[in-house]
Amino acid sequence: MVETAPAKLPASAASKTGHSHRVIIVGGGFGGLYAAQSLGQAPVEVTLIDRRNFHLFQPLLYQVATGGLSPGDIASPLRSVLNRQKNTQVLLGEVTELDPDAQQLTLKDGDVVPYDSLILATGSAHHYFGNDHWEAIAPSIKTIEDALEVRRRIFLAFEKAELEPDPEIQAALLTFVIVGAGPTGVEMAGAIADLAYHTLRKDFRSIDPRQTKIILVEGMDRVLPPFAPSLSAKAAQDLQQLGIEVRTQTFMTSLEGEQVTFKSGDTEETIRAHTVLWAAGVRASSLSKVVCAKTNAPSDRAGRIMVEPDFSVPSYPNIYVIGDLAHYAHQDDKPLPGVAPVAMQGGKYVARLISDRLRDKPTPAFHYTDSGSLAIIGRSSAVVDLNWTKLTGFPAWVVWALVHVMFLIEFDNKVIVMTQWMWNFFTRNQGARLITGRDVIKSDSAFMKQ
Amino acid sequence: MVETAPAKLPASAASKTGHSHRVIIVGGGFGGLYAAQSLGQAPVEVTLIDRRNFHLFQPLLYQVATGGLSPGDIASPLRSVLNRQKNTQVLLGEVTELDPDAQQLTLKDGDVVPYDSLILATGSAHHYFGNDHWEAIAPSIKTIEDALEVRRRIFLAFEKAELEPDPEIQAALLTFVIVGAGPTGVEMAGAIADLAYHTLRKDFRSIDPRQTKIILVEGMDRVLPPFAPSLSAKAAQDLQQLGIEVRTQTFMTSLEGEQVTFKSGDTEETIRAHTVLWAAGVRASSLSKVVCAKTNAPSDRAGRIMVEPDFSVPSYPNIYVIGDLAHYAHQDDKPLPGVAPVAMQGGKYVARLISDRLRDKPTPAFHYTDSGSLAIIGRSSAVVDLNWTKLTGFPAWVVWALVHVMFLIEFDNKVIVMTQWMWNFFTRNQGARLITGRDVIKSDSAFMKQ
Repeated sequence: MVETAPAKLPASAASKTGHSHRVIIVGGGFGGLYAAQSLGQAPVEVTLIDRRNFHLFQPLLYQVATGGLSPGDIASPLRSVLNRQKNTQVLLGEVTELDPDAQQLTLKDGDVVPYDSLILATGSAHHYFGNDHWEAIAPSIKTIEDALEVRRRIFLAFEKAELEPDPEIQAALLTFVIVGAGPTGVEMAGAIADLAYHTLRKDFRSIDPRQTKIILVEGMDRVLPPFAPSLSAKAAQDLQQLGIEVRTQTFMTSLEGEQVTFKSGDTEETIRAHTVLWAAGVRASSLSKVVCAKTNAPSDRAGRIMVEPDFSVPSYPNIYVIGDLAHYAHQDDKPLPGVAPVAMQGGKYVARLISDRLRDKPTPAFHYTDSGSLAIIGRSSAVVDLNWTKLTGFPAWVVWALVHVMFLIEFDNKVIVMTQWMWNFFTRNQGARLITGRDVIKSDSAFMKQ
Repeated sequence: MVETAPAKLPASAASKTGHSHRVIIVGGGFGGLYAAQSLGQAPVEVTLIDRRNFHLFQPLLYQVATGGLSPGDIASPLRSVLNRQKNTQVLLGEVTELDPDAQQLTLKDGDVVPYDSLILATGSAHHYFGNDHWEAIAPSIKTIEDALEVRRRIFLAFEKAELEPDPEIQAALLTFVIVGAGPTGVEMAGAIADLAYHTLRKDFRSIDPRQTKIILVEGMDRVLPPFAPSLSAKAAQDLQQLGIEVRTQTFMTSLEGEQVTFKSGDTEETIRAHTVLWAAGVRASSLSKVVCAKTNAPSDRAGRIMVEPDFSVPSYPNIYVIGDLAHYAHQDDKPLPGVAPVAMQGGKYVARLISDRLRDKPTPAFHYTDSGSLAIIGRSSAVVDLNWTKLTGFPAWVVWALVHVMFLIEFDNKVIVMTQWMWNFFTRNQGARLITGRDVIKSDSAFMKQ
């Protein structure tokens, strides 16, 4: 079979452009992709390295998890997004080592990649706050595989309930707990409510999906803590109207099999729930440790690398960290939030900085433009804070839909997603609710016996 | 965790319709689904059992394998297709045992399902003619998981080639062998040619995807053996024009790692190919053995159950076998082919037979209406034999596209597929070319080391 000896990368066509300054970008999320696109006309050779061959539009991943969209609808092949940039190549690979003094990276397969400027944008992973054994029971939704696994569990729970004679077990199968009421948790809870109370309403004969219990748990005193309190209140009201039980100032303290224990103040309660989803915590991706160890850069509690005002790592002005991987101190020393606009703006800024430096041109300081925040609640409501105005209900939903479609990178995805949404909106049907994965029945039994 | 004791199924809402004749249908493919739909108004209680929660439109599965469509585009949840039929319920389950005298089935989880009439329609599985170890190296495309695995391998081959310095290994990575030139093999070869020579043309920097070698191997003396010889000749010409090497009267005799050995007459040749796909043989699904053992029904070489002229099993007039699982002797004792129209017509006929028998009404003998055969070759050509006329080239492609969209069960799938096709047709872009599966890079290395 094929075996690749550790070697420098083959001479690429990109090097045929004759530029000698090599910019390596690690990660093809919003930050890395915007950096690559902003460098398309710069006199540099760009290489984008990602473990996956596609850019994933994460804000819509919850719709894959709930059967509204297919993975292909929200993912764009990186090569096709960037194929018109003559100075850019894409490599499928995972960075495992960094040597900041020799200015080179090592990939998992042993290949060595030298750079002149390095942009790190590998984002975040989920975080169980020391309860790593919860991960198998309560998956979170960061990758396409995660989303398909969650989709499998949600729809399998209804299938099992349909077959279950014991009413107590049936009730557990129809109980969904979502831990964390940030935008992802709120969106998941809303989508599951819409599924159970509308889409699946007529699909079963032994169970009534309207008996489904959905519990949204949040440690803070309100849902959507990053939003204005008035929007949090409206969101909580919308969620309750959808039939969701919202529990704030409540923590999950134990999770064993189907036994979920909540703590609220001094009160503890254990309930039985078949499906528990995690939307509570993220931390920087694992590359953070490598970078901090090799550059002595400090990191925060979530593992994010503390960067200089120009996104560079202390003592290494040619290594930049952007997006969710970076801790960028902002007003009152609070870091910029881990959202797509921050990553995009960081990517664009760093690209400009590299171009300017090559021409010995000064670059103005980075200024973050906060264009607001939005979260969707169920099928036709949302909360939107545009800073200059706040919207709720259906008008907010329209803004939410427009913003999301606008940012879907490729045109064909936009058309497909809009068609699918219009269809789902008018029919409440969700065509992508497939249970997949090898050996559907067996593999789940294995999980059940864990 | 949930544990279900073996038990009769819970009383279902379907039994509330007051009908006492229970029809159990096993398999939600074309045969089973058409049978269920035809029984929607009959005075019976219908239960459709499938291992999966969706009907899969298999004729378009090759487009999922080549990144043109997403799984959700060609799959429809069985529950939503059938939810308007008050007398019908759907169960997710796998049948493992049959007791034809007690008139009951046993599911994998131990549940027992009694029936009055039984329709078996579990279709076919791939078949390696005694070379089962080829399966790991040369996957075939029968399920969504198969298609995603093939998609992963195809796109990963290009990614690896881009990184590969050794020109010989690079050439092996860019060599694709498809074994079997029936419709599936021809369609796969055409789709890969379109990918390599058009869609991916500008996506790489070290390799030129136009160097890709695609070899289509067929044991018979022409491609598309079931078609008229003139259409086979036109198809072969179209394939060669696309850049595909067609080898007829050639057999794959050995497959070890990347070493593929072909035999043609007395000549043997071994080439090196990274990706080998199997489109050569199918046999009846595994339920066939259980049925033959319990009912003493004879089966043919491919494991298909030999049925009576009314699709029933000899000595058991209330057990029917339809679709790819059945060997239905037709003209000259040749069985009906394993295609969707045969399954659909069988399903409808058996449904009518059951209704008629309940009313003591005679049913006319089954008559198969052969509406023709079609196969697509690449992006804009096809061969179509409508019996009263033969079409090739672009007109045939239009017929092919209309027929396929027409039969896609659900309306939303039709809209999505048409949008996607129009987009792919005009741009040659294929947005669903994602490499997925946990740990993309690692899992492939494991495969490579096998």
